[in-house]
Amino acid sequence: MAVGAADKPIACGGALADYSRAVRTRILESGRSLNLKRAIEDTMNLDAVYSQLTIPTGAKLALVVLDGLGDIATAEQGSMTPLEAARTPNLDALVRDGCAQGRMTPVAPGITPGSGPGHLALFGYDPLEFQVGRGVIEALGLGVELQAGDVCARANFCTLDAEGHVTDRRAGRIPTEECERLCAILADKIKKLGTTKVMIQPGKEHRFVIVFRGAGLEGPLSDTDPGREGLPIAEAKPADAKSAKQKKVAKLVADFYRAALPLLQDEVRANGFLMRGIAHQPDIPLFVDRYQLKPACLAVYPMYKGLAQLVGMTKIEGPQTIEEQFNRYLEEHANYDFFFIHFKYTDKAGEDGNFDAKRAYIEEFDAALPILLKKRPDVLAITGDHSTPCALKGHSWHPQPVLLHSSYSGTDKLDRFTETGSNLGSLGVFPAKYLMRLMQANARMFDKFGA
Amino acid sequence: MAVGAADKPIACGGALADYSRAVRTRILESGRSLNLKRAIEDTMNLDAVYSQLTIPTGAKLALVVLDGLGDIATAEQGSMTPLEAARTPNLDALVRDGCAQGRMTPVAPGITPGSGPGHLALFGYDPLEFQVGRGVIEALGLGVELQAGDVCARANFCTLDAEGHVTDRRAGRIPTEECERLCAILADKIKKLGTTKVMIQPGKEHRFVIVFRGAGLEGPLSDTDPGREGLPIAEAKPADAKSAKQKKVAKLVADFYRAALPLLQDEVRANGFLMRGIAHQPDIPLFVDRYQLKPACLAVYPMYKGLAQLVGMTKIEGPQTIEEQFNRYLEEHANYDFFFIHFKYTDKAGEDGNFDAKRAYIEEFDAALPILLKKRPDVLAITGDHSTPCALKGHSWHPQPVLLHSSYSGTDKLDRFTETGSNLGSLGVFPAKYLMRLMQANARMFDKFGA
Repeated sequence: MAVGAADKPIACGGALADYSRAVRTRILESGRSLNLKRAIEDTMNLDAVYSQLTIPTGAKLALVVLDGLGDIATAEQGSMTPLEAARTPNLDALVRDGCAQGRMTPVAPGITPGSGPGHLALFGYDPLEFQVGRGVIEALGLGVELQAGDVCARANFCTLDAEGHVTDRRAGRIPTEECERLCAILADKIKKLGTTKVMIQPGKEHRFVIVFRGAGLEGPLSDTDPGREGLPIAEAKPADAKSAKQKKVAKLVADFYRAALPLLQDEVRANGFLMRGIAHQPDIPLFVDRYQLKPACLAVYPMYKGLAQLVGMTKIEGPQTIEEQFNRYLEEHANYDFFFIHFKYTDKAGEDGNFDAKRAYIEEFDAALPILLKKRPDVLAITGDHSTPCALKGHSWHPQPVLLHSSYSGTDKLDRFTETGSNLGSLGVFPAKYLMRLMQANARMFDKFGA
Repeated sequence: MAVGAADKPIACGGALADYSRAVRTRILESGRSLNLKRAIEDTMNLDAVYSQLTIPTGAKLALVVLDGLGDIATAEQGSMTPLEAARTPNLDALVRDGCAQGRMTPVAPGITPGSGPGHLALFGYDPLEFQVGRGVIEALGLGVELQAGDVCARANFCTLDAEGHVTDRRAGRIPTEECERLCAILADKIKKLGTTKVMIQPGKEHRFVIVFRGAGLEGPLSDTDPGREGLPIAEAKPADAKSAKQKKVAKLVADFYRAALPLLQDEVRANGFLMRGIAHQPDIPLFVDRYQLKPACLAVYPMYKGLAQLVGMTKIEGPQTIEEQFNRYLEEHANYDFFFIHFKYTDKAGEDGNFDAKRAYIEEFDAALPILLKKRPDVLAITGDHSTPCALKGHSWHPQPVLLHSSYSGTDKLDRFTETGSNLGSLGVFPAKYLMRLMQANARMFDKFGA
């Protein structure tokens, strides 16, 4: 089939038009620079081209994410990364069977992504274009089922003195149980502000989340956290002074303080709270419209389920281990076109700086891999959402290795899937947001461009 | 010499200004979206920088294209590509002499280009910016000598029933001879419509091309092909309802049908025709203005001569084999600065899925290479316009390997020119549209940017 773009109706016209309008509106309403506007518009052009070329083929695609997989080799680690040190006979066999490898820049050179941008890029969305507020991420992470337009804020309990000045921005890191008790008090007494529904969800220690749900709300607003002790709680101000929706949220925040602070006045440590990252759930084009693929999420942790839900993936609940996730994939194989399978523990080990644990988790993953391969996806990508090097004990900017396997991936003639090996692969170093497009290409989902 | 752009008069001010004006006018006059206008303006910014830095040096550059060269290694092919399997002593010697290698993305990750976009990228034009209509490509492919402003349509003979409904969109795939006979009838009777010249060129089977030449014409228009049987011939509608030039073409199309259908009314199968991809020859900035290089094309197939002609290359006619093309290069060496030499057969073999033939054609090419090297170009690039993997029997998105040889290319210390080898090269994976700029740089044609 060789029809060109000009001959072909846009595969998802309505959704594409909606998407364009939404993005355009958002850009024009925002205070972003002209350059960024142009960069975003360029991306939109290319997205429109991809959409016009898309042909559903019925192929099955799987994106398997070992969170924080990428690492760096240091002398202290024997010049090895955990992936290099791990025994991975099943990954090795997959590589020898024929894979393309490369490395991916999650956001931009030198930028260390959080889990939100890391995953949005893997799902094929430019993480600079679709910025998800901290409140939304936190709410997703706590398992709140968000709806489009919900405004979320992450909040810390804090300590106030008699003059209302902040003396401890984290309320002495009260135990989680105390946070849960206080959130229950607030949630019990403040269910609505006017017609706006209010939801409160406790997190760990002093952290909690506030969600406003109602018509005509929009972020972002400035933090009420003054940023240091000795200052009073700040006022939440609209980022765009002309936005009636943001002004409405500013009033809601003020009303919420008026209702909540009296309920906390007898607390010794947690007699106040500070709000940060006040923003609405972004209006992201749905995965199914963008790629013509019906997606499902097999993740264990709420954060990743939430990120998948942001783009409209169906959450498959139940599995707790990677074996269970892969087995569930086998069961659900016929029901979806695209599977996002998330393995958390490599990131945790990296955050702990625990090289041996990270290696062991990779080996655990590798041992389970044959279950997935019982119904080998037509296109399989295995990668991380970013690097979490043990030497850094945290996320990093280092491009993560990626392995792409299909009947059309060819082979890079490498023996293993490692950081050093992937440096030699045919995919080169590329922006992570293109992985989805490469997966679609390998699924033969794109018509030829031009004659 | 180390003066910066700011200190330096614009090397090709007139040409640059003309170019800018032409492109800008085209954009403003066209019905393209604001997005595309901005994308083009961004590209123009970089192009303007390159132009300002350009210094003619008298260097000789050669771009040698083995069409569809890139391939993938599969197990069925013994994990080899045709380029890897081929015996290429002359390419090997060139590599050992010092080359930079890399891989090129023709359009964007995952996108499979047609020959048009593939070659425009090789000629240094962004294929997303300069989209050439199907009618134009088809006309070029049939050897029509197009002029700027010509509006072309590809056409199919079709079968109409008594009510004028399409019963076969391809007229039963009539033989080429019948197509030629019918085109001769149309061409004989319809030479002009008003002041507009009409040209008709038969293609293979039911295919032909219609060209309108005259003042004040512009595309694109919608197809008259209804896209499926059972419907009447559609009306060609201007893409931009406000364009007087497109309206004029719409009237020409209607007039053409009025003149042509009676001439076909006694035909049993081919008593009608459908038009697609109605568009004008795009107004592409000339190669000589853009690069300050006088270009020549040594191609055998009309399509590639036509693409070269689109950017103003001189077509050198005569040579039929790669030996003859290289020998003619030797003869013409003094007359041009830039030689585009096109070898078609690697693509044909890839399209046929014929690994051995593709390998053999590469060996044939290699055997001829010493002829070219008798007058070694100052800068020599050898690459494909895209990959045509045997396993896919068609064009693909896989980045094609590229070899760049000059006194300043350095060496990547590789033994051969192959897909796997080029993964390791110093050029990395880069957009094909930058190859021309790298060739210019290797020809020392760019002044320093900034102080």
